[in-house]
Amino acid sequence: MAKDKKLVEAITSMDVDFAQWYTDVVKKAELIDYSSVKGCMIIKPDGYAIWENIQNELDRRFKETGVENVYMPMFIPESLLNKEKDHVEGFAPEVAWVTHGGLNPLQERLCVRPTSETLFCDFYKNIIQSYRDLPKVYNQWCSVVRWEKETRPFLRSREFLWQEGHTAHATAEEAEERTVQMLNLYADFCEEVLAMPVVRGQKTEKEKFAGAEATYTIEALMHDGKALQSGTSHNFGDGFAKAFGIQYTDKENKLQHVHQTSWGMTTRLIGAIIMVHGDDSGLVLPPRVAPTQIMVIPIMQHKEGVLDKAAELKDRLAKSGIRVKLDSTDKSPGWKFSEQEMRGIPMRIEVGPKDIEASQCVLVRRDTREKIVVSFDELETKAAELLETIQTEMFERAKAHRDEHIYDAHNYDEFTEIVTNKAGFIRGMWCEDQACEDKIKEDFAATSRCMPFNDQEQIADTCVCCGKPAHKLVYWGKAY
Amino acid sequence: MAKDKKLVEAITSMDVDFAQWYTDVVKKAELIDYSSVKGCMIIKPDGYAIWENIQNELDRRFKETGVENVYMPMFIPESLLNKEKDHVEGFAPEVAWVTHGGLNPLQERLCVRPTSETLFCDFYKNIIQSYRDLPKVYNQWCSVVRWEKETRPFLRSREFLWQEGHTAHATAEEAEERTVQMLNLYADFCEEVLAMPVVRGQKTEKEKFAGAEATYTIEALMHDGKALQSGTSHNFGDGFAKAFGIQYTDKENKLQHVHQTSWGMTTRLIGAIIMVHGDDSGLVLPPRVAPTQIMVIPIMQHKEGVLDKAAELKDRLAKSGIRVKLDSTDKSPGWKFSEQEMRGIPMRIEVGPKDIEASQCVLVRRDTREKIVVSFDELETKAAELLETIQTEMFERAKAHRDEHIYDAHNYDEFTEIVTNKAGFIRGMWCEDQACEDKIKEDFAATSRCMPFNDQEQIADTCVCCGKPAHKLVYWGKAY
Repeated sequence: MAKDKKLVEAITSMDVDFAQWYTDVVKKAELIDYSSVKGCMIIKPDGYAIWENIQNELDRRFKETGVENVYMPMFIPESLLNKEKDHVEGFAPEVAWVTHGGLNPLQERLCVRPTSETLFCDFYKNIIQSYRDLPKVYNQWCSVVRWEKETRPFLRSREFLWQEGHTAHATAEEAEERTVQMLNLYADFCEEVLAMPVVRGQKTEKEKFAGAEATYTIEALMHDGKALQSGTSHNFGDGFAKAFGIQYTDKENKLQHVHQTSWGMTTRLIGAIIMVHGDDSGLVLPPRVAPTQIMVIPIMQHKEGVLDKAAELKDRLAKSGIRVKLDSTDKSPGWKFSEQEMRGIPMRIEVGPKDIEASQCVLVRRDTREKIVVSFDELETKAAELLETIQTEMFERAKAHRDEHIYDAHNYDEFTEIVTNKAGFIRGMWCEDQACEDKIKEDFAATSRCMPFNDQEQIADTCVCCGKPAHKLVYWGKAY
Repeated sequence: MAKDKKLVEAITSMDVDFAQWYTDVVKKAELIDYSSVKGCMIIKPDGYAIWENIQNELDRRFKETGVENVYMPMFIPESLLNKEKDHVEGFAPEVAWVTHGGLNPLQERLCVRPTSETLFCDFYKNIIQSYRDLPKVYNQWCSVVRWEKETRPFLRSREFLWQEGHTAHATAEEAEERTVQMLNLYADFCEEVLAMPVVRGQKTEKEKFAGAEATYTIEALMHDGKALQSGTSHNFGDGFAKAFGIQYTDKENKLQHVHQTSWGMTTRLIGAIIMVHGDDSGLVLPPRVAPTQIMVIPIMQHKEGVLDKAAELKDRLAKSGIRVKLDSTDKSPGWKFSEQEMRGIPMRIEVGPKDIEASQCVLVRRDTREKIVVSFDELETKAAELLETIQTEMFERAKAHRDEHIYDAHNYDEFTEIVTNKAGFIRGMWCEDQACEDKIKEDFAATSRCMPFNDQEQIADTCVCCGKPAHKLVYWGKAY
């Protein structure tokens, strides 16, 4: 029994040290390993399979809206990166530079893409001539590099995987529509598939993307009360089009600049899943994104018929479309339970000699540990129903936790009291002066996360920081 | 009518200039575009969709054999690359070097991965301890960089997309088995999905992969009689394991080195599809890998009911699982035909007022241009059957063409005569002395492509080059 506990004891309790708990889970659930390249991670099979499920479902949703996938070079010539002023200022300090090809120095340095706006602009300039060529709604799945000083697995690493959508449109209205459409697609995906509630809103001028006219964001609340920016969608207006000369002739034969957007989601989402749903026994995966949804664990498997029955149950579930595995290794059942829990597999099925005699097995939920006895006859139906229930209740629980950690502040005293003593989102009005954002950041290391879309909600008419008249509601918080 | 011909006229005839024909097709079929990074290409939606189909089908086949996907960093520290002597000699001259991160020079240069043996070895060294940890059968889908001097779209570019499998096994036998298994998986994939016949065999010492004990290869013959190496699988023995110290304790508690393999296929396959199946009207895609399998093209679409009927046919085919599109643009039918042919869409369906009156439509094969009148009742069945027929006959045609271009040479005079006047594979015995390979390469720029697996076939008992006793049959050829 002592040995059975070893796996769980290997991770720090969330309440003792959340950051250490996170690192322990990432490692013990076998999601990543460290590499000999500082700040770059190895994504192991269990981690990568989660990413594959995210990719498949996002890609399916993208394509339903007319997105086409392409692949752009991973290198950007320095002169190309320099074309849009705000953009280069935002990224130049954190890119990796290639200076030699083979044994020879390059004539011009190339950066490893931190994001591909400049490459897509250069491409669009060549392939867009007429209104008939519009819109272009392209996306790519790739890795990008940002030379971060401090790194954490999934949350902030020097190389990460993502998708980046880049679109070009004839009108400003169409570009705005696409920007919002993709933000909502991201939000629905997070809520429906990752069981993770998000706040949808707009970034302030200070927090928006380098080169964008407007940045929309979804912000999720982690278990420790910190915010995580989980996906962003940018409206570039015609700023990049003017810098790169991307023009088309409209129906009246007049030359116009295109309007552009970009939007991205990353492997950071895996970090979000861990920090929203995980517990002191390890990872807890929502069934829709779990690589393995059910682990069948035989009890007293040396007894005749037990392994056969366990394999039969597994085959039946697999045939019904459930992602299921059988753990028939020679480890003890207790050890197998710990492993299944550590890896976040949403459900296990226990089946032993007594169960077989009674033509039943035991379904155990990972999220609540509830045990449900199910007769063999009803296995497929009950298991599928329970996976759906787990998915729904994980979302509801995360939403309740999030809502319990949203606080309203009407003045700086209230703000100070909350930010000092509580962890979560603080809702407070803002006068739209960057000085107030700067002050809050300096005083408390808290930032404006977003101005929510349901903007009509005004909890006061003065700025939570300076007391001057204010019309914008802002979600403030400490962030990853 | 003149205008309708423009698309086709834009490409050079194969017989006039095969290389120019290839470049024209790649561009006019909208597979790639050039980028402002020399030697790197942009893969456009139609090109990338072919790659997605290749990926999906290969990945499905991989997973059936127990392969798990992972993701490794794109950078390799110089000291890590240097660990295996043959390997570094093979790759160091053609890697891109990152020397700066952000504004600071790096302490150690990092190369952008040209292949990831060294990273996987470093990883395996950390995660393999016991025989219980074996085998490891990992794969990754990613891009790699090789600083080539001369580049051609898909065939040889400075960055390309691929998969690289890397495995570790307890015994030499198991490693050898996996090496051959993956080579056969590749060969079956090429023949069944890409309709491309291949010769399966082993590379000579001179041509094998840097650091491998044995390299197996599949070699395909392009329409111009040149060979294309289309996939390779390497058995490393325990060479890398010794260089990196990858050891495990076996069941008798003795320390052993693991045995390793690696195997890869790349976007080069798209170049192979073009050069095996294409014709003077453009691309010809095998149905199983075609992003769009059927284009429905309405005739006299301004007439009442025509567009509705065309859309109905398209919907019926889509529902039956066929990848189908409708071209309802305002271009002329002739122009639409040319575009469909240029893009290599395996079949088009023509439907006009007279067809509708007769409750029928016309199926036109891209490969043979044969027209088949089909009644609306039988649409789904006949279309699916015809796609299967096209797939089968494309393979048979490619195989007949390949077989017609295999020549036997029994001595150097015969070899000289064939290699000078004919294009194709030349079968000739080899004494296993590298001097003969060198001489053939120097005299004719031809190389040993492989020693075929069905080795018993001995067409002579003396070397085709030096006349000394010889036991190995070699396929010789000029290659891409």
